[in-house]
Amino acid sequence: MATLVLLRHGESEWNVKGLFTGWVDVTLSPTGEEEARRGGALLLEAGIRPDVVHTSVLTRAIKTANLALEAADLLWLPVRRSWRLNERHYGALQGKDKAQTRAEFGDEQFMLWRRSYDVPPPPIADDDEYSQRGDGRYEVLPPELLPRTECLKDVVQRMLPYWYDEIVPDLAGGRTVLVVAHGNSLRALVKHLEGIGDEDIAGLNIPTGIPLRYELDAEFRPLGKGEYLDPEAAAAAIEAVANQGKK
Amino acid sequence: MATLVLLRHGESEWNVKGLFTGWVDVTLSPTGEEEARRGGALLLEAGIRPDVVHTSVLTRAIKTANLALEAADLLWLPVRRSWRLNERHYGALQGKDKAQTRAEFGDEQFMLWRRSYDVPPPPIADDDEYSQRGDGRYEVLPPELLPRTECLKDVVQRMLPYWYDEIVPDLAGGRTVLVVAHGNSLRALVKHLEGIGDEDIAGLNIPTGIPLRYELDAEFRPLGKGEYLDPEAAAAAIEAVANQGKK
Repeated sequence: MATLVLLRHGESEWNVKGLFTGWVDVTLSPTGEEEARRGGALLLEAGIRPDVVHTSVLTRAIKTANLALEAADLLWLPVRRSWRLNERHYGALQGKDKAQTRAEFGDEQFMLWRRSYDVPPPPIADDDEYSQRGDGRYEVLPPELLPRTECLKDVVQRMLPYWYDEIVPDLAGGRTVLVVAHGNSLRALVKHLEGIGDEDIAGLNIPTGIPLRYELDAEFRPLGKGEYLDPEAAAAAIEAVANQGKK
Repeated sequence: MATLVLLRHGESEWNVKGLFTGWVDVTLSPTGEEEARRGGALLLEAGIRPDVVHTSVLTRAIKTANLALEAADLLWLPVRRSWRLNERHYGALQGKDKAQTRAEFGDEQFMLWRRSYDVPPPPIADDDEYSQRGDGRYEVLPPELLPRTECLKDVVQRMLPYWYDEIVPDLAGGRTVLVVAHGNSLRALVKHLEGIGDEDIAGLNIPTGIPLRYELDAEFRPLGKGEYLDPEAAAAAIEAVANQGKK
């Protein structure tokens, strides 16, 4: 049996501004930094001691990991990073105002881009100021493999090789693994772990800053549903998002 | 040809208090955090883009790396950590006041412990509050290999396997490697790189927070002396330490 803990980064500067972020490398807001420290304190209170940490290559996830680990006195843990844990690439919407985009394209198209499983936004142009073309952290990727847009299905496909090749071997032997990543890369992983259908995944929201624990069997499948280390705060956050959708 | 950059962590909370630190895991002072950010800015100004980072497993080196990398917009770089890059273990002196120790044991003994190449302080007891016995970050070390005290010669011996096995392969192919560590683990490395004798190494001081760059040949030997990215600040810091010794 092994333990997997997922942690979604806290509020970023562009969450505050209401902009589509995706692969744009914005940092945490002061609130996001506080959420990260609280996430680390929750790990400590629960007596969870990860053996290894995985993050995306985006600053907001890395800072969340660093602040959480510092709060838990675990900065020394081995850590590995991969673009495969990045947030969904939001294509040409990156850097755009969410409310303006909704007004411009209408509710239906807006919700399709945000919540459909397999409809990506239009691709971002390589010369767009919010393109990742030329960003040193992706130099390992040949230009034709660098994402220009992604739907959640694309995220599942590029995330799973990392799950199988890098995270699962770390879980072997009963070790505890912490993954610090993003709303959509974690939704992709939870979809895989819990076997959630392509339609039903639209209803899944993972709150920020609250560690989500899975106990896994010998084949690295969850023994039950994931448990938030602060279930009340998680339920409140999930309900808030659900109500938002109803307005 | 490859590039190696060494960075000594900034001022820690126990530097301020004048206590022997060694493997005790104290954090940076606010001044130390500033030094770390400045180190990152110096990298950026010099146009140095490391491909990979190595740190010790001590918080003050890891935070220095994190703050420097954040200042250089390079938090996403791959990083590896090892106890082999730790500060010298200060034995039974860990946690002791430096001035009191000097008064108690006399100048000669004090300087022998601080600056001799092969005289370690008395070993720390396993039940001492500043022993590392039972610290999770060293659980990979069998109890008999966990250091209880070290002289600089011991540091050279336990650091070199990491240099040969982990850092040199990273330098292969002309890559740039950043090592963020401590006064004595970096003195040990510079002694090896520059071929400094056992007597002469006593005179070598590496200032905090100023990246020190080496260009290495195909056999990973330096093409010349190391260059500080802020030579004037480095010279002033080195002179200040030398004058301190004269008093």
